[in-house]
Amino acid sequence: MFRTHLVSELNPKLDGAEVKVAGWVHNIRNLGGKVFILLRDKSGIGQIVVEKGNSAYDKIMNIGLESTLVVNGIVKADPRAPNGIEVHAKDVEILSYAKSPLPLDVTGKVKADIDTRLRERLLDLRRLEMQAVLKIQSVAVKSFRETLYKYGFVEVFTPKIIASATEGGAQLFPVLYFGKEAFLAQSPQLYKELLAGAIERVFEIAPAWRAEESDTPYHLSEFISMDVEMAFADYNDIMALIEQIIYNMINDVRRECRNRLKILNYTPPDVKIPMKKISYSEAIEILKSKGVNIKFGDDIGTPELRV
Amino acid sequence: MFRTHLVSELNPKLDGAEVKVAGWVHNIRNLGGKVFILLRDKSGIGQIVVEKGNSAYDKIMNIGLESTLVVNGIVKADPRAPNGIEVHAKDVEILSYAKSPLPLDVTGKVKADIDTRLRERLLDLRRLEMQAVLKIQSVAVKSFRETLYKYGFVEVFTPKIIASATEGGAQLFPVLYFGKEAFLAQSPQLYKELLAGAIERVFEIAPAWRAEESDTPYHLSEFISMDVEMAFADYNDIMALIEQIIYNMINDVRRECRNRLKILNYTPPDVKIPMKKISYSEAIEILKSKGVNIKFGDDIGTPELRV
Repeated sequence: MFRTHLVSELNPKLDGAEVKVAGWVHNIRNLGGKVFILLRDKSGIGQIVVEKGNSAYDKIMNIGLESTLVVNGIVKADPRAPNGIEVHAKDVEILSYAKSPLPLDVTGKVKADIDTRLRERLLDLRRLEMQAVLKIQSVAVKSFRETLYKYGFVEVFTPKIIASATEGGAQLFPVLYFGKEAFLAQSPQLYKELLAGAIERVFEIAPAWRAEESDTPYHLSEFISMDVEMAFADYNDIMALIEQIIYNMINDVRRECRNRLKILNYTPPDVKIPMKKISYSEAIEILKSKGVNIKFGDDIGTPELRV
Repeated sequence: MFRTHLVSELNPKLDGAEVKVAGWVHNIRNLGGKVFILLRDKSGIGQIVVEKGNSAYDKIMNIGLESTLVVNGIVKADPRAPNGIEVHAKDVEILSYAKSPLPLDVTGKVKADIDTRLRERLLDLRRLEMQAVLKIQSVAVKSFRETLYKYGFVEVFTPKIIASATEGGAQLFPVLYFGKEAFLAQSPQLYKELLAGAIERVFEIAPAWRAEESDTPYHLSEFISMDVEMAFADYNDIMALIEQIIYNMINDVRRECRNRLKILNYTPPDVKIPMKKISYSEAIEILKSKGVNIKFGDDIGTPELRV
């Protein structure tokens, strides 16, 4: 066993208990007689104290930030420590040494540009902001599905390599399929319609592709399409469903991701049902007034939520 | 509103009530004075009776199988009817007429070959067996996710257009990406590892591709990969997790898909935890004894469940 507790599970009631925690070195301060390590796991950050004279002290002298540790120690309540708690190491096992210095600062004190972040994605994903985005995305998608399950929708998986285009005007990525030209699906539209004609209510969360330049207001070239199809329903039923989906997603994220939202310094909007609705013509007028160049026949009405 | 009830919600307690049901004409029998329609919706099949003299009678004279109807009528308990219940039509609205004769028998009495089924997929998906497969798949995938949520896994979405291969030996489909050669991901492996190095426990359910001929025991060229990655765990932890996932999937399907399993005439196996485990060497011996040609270094150990 690599751990008995996540660092966020440590609390003053455990004072005196022996625990095992594991994670990455988020920060390290050597005060001579004592070394303070901020250890980060998936739940948060906790403080480890290694005293001089302890066998672990020499071991950790040369570890750099982002090295991976397992720490065995005694919980001690201390109001000066983060969350009022620290772990006094009895022993430390070093699972891996990170190279030093790191090419990207995980604590975020030194900002990195987008090229560095993408090149050093391993470290970039460890930043608390990126962890928050990943967790919020997962909760939002879970909420989307739960609303649909509740209303009797069946999750489906449709083919992604297709023989021809689904929607007029959308640019396709060609795939070489055993010597023949095929394309990446730009939408599950046609499959969804077949399926709704059989089992009435279906949804799919899956990648979709549009070979469109990234400087347009339309699609990313690869995105996650959250797609619903419903038989025996009119546009009012669809709007009522989408309202419910959005309402639940925002409120589930608000409730389940309180700390993650704080890290991102973001407060989700208050939403109420029924939401304000506008007609297609009104929507076109608003877009025109914002200077968006509307070509009628474009699939601007497709309700694709990007996650 | 297209309906007040699904056909499976009708029961003898509703005797005398006025209801509205909607669905497809699964079967039709004209006894002269009465026409019996078996109406199919996503929940099942119910019986409609249209009596001669009723205004609906003439309307339905020319409808073929798989036409789409909305029926307004009075529920009547009758032990001779399927499920002991039928709806005596007051009025019928025909939403669409199906062409007749149909190129595929949805009731399944006349079997179709695979070419016909794929060409007439709209009708093929309406067969109760196909509906059962879709529903069971959705329940199985839901169960997979629920077990992982329970153990603190985060759902992720990784890129599917990639610059180079993930696993040695796997054949790739080339994609033309804005004038450059790229490939379809054959596994989320590398991305999962980056993500597990940040948030420890991740999973993804997404398409993956292998450009392998279909006459090998390896992969479908396009399949749904159900993929898990876990930090601070050893192979025993992984086996315990997979056991739990499989146990829950089988039992959730058994419980939630009783009728669908009956349609497929299939009983899921009884599974117990802990499951029997064999070593890698034993697995290789078993495969060899079955005449499977093992090339060491192949990724035969990759736990990909196909749905």
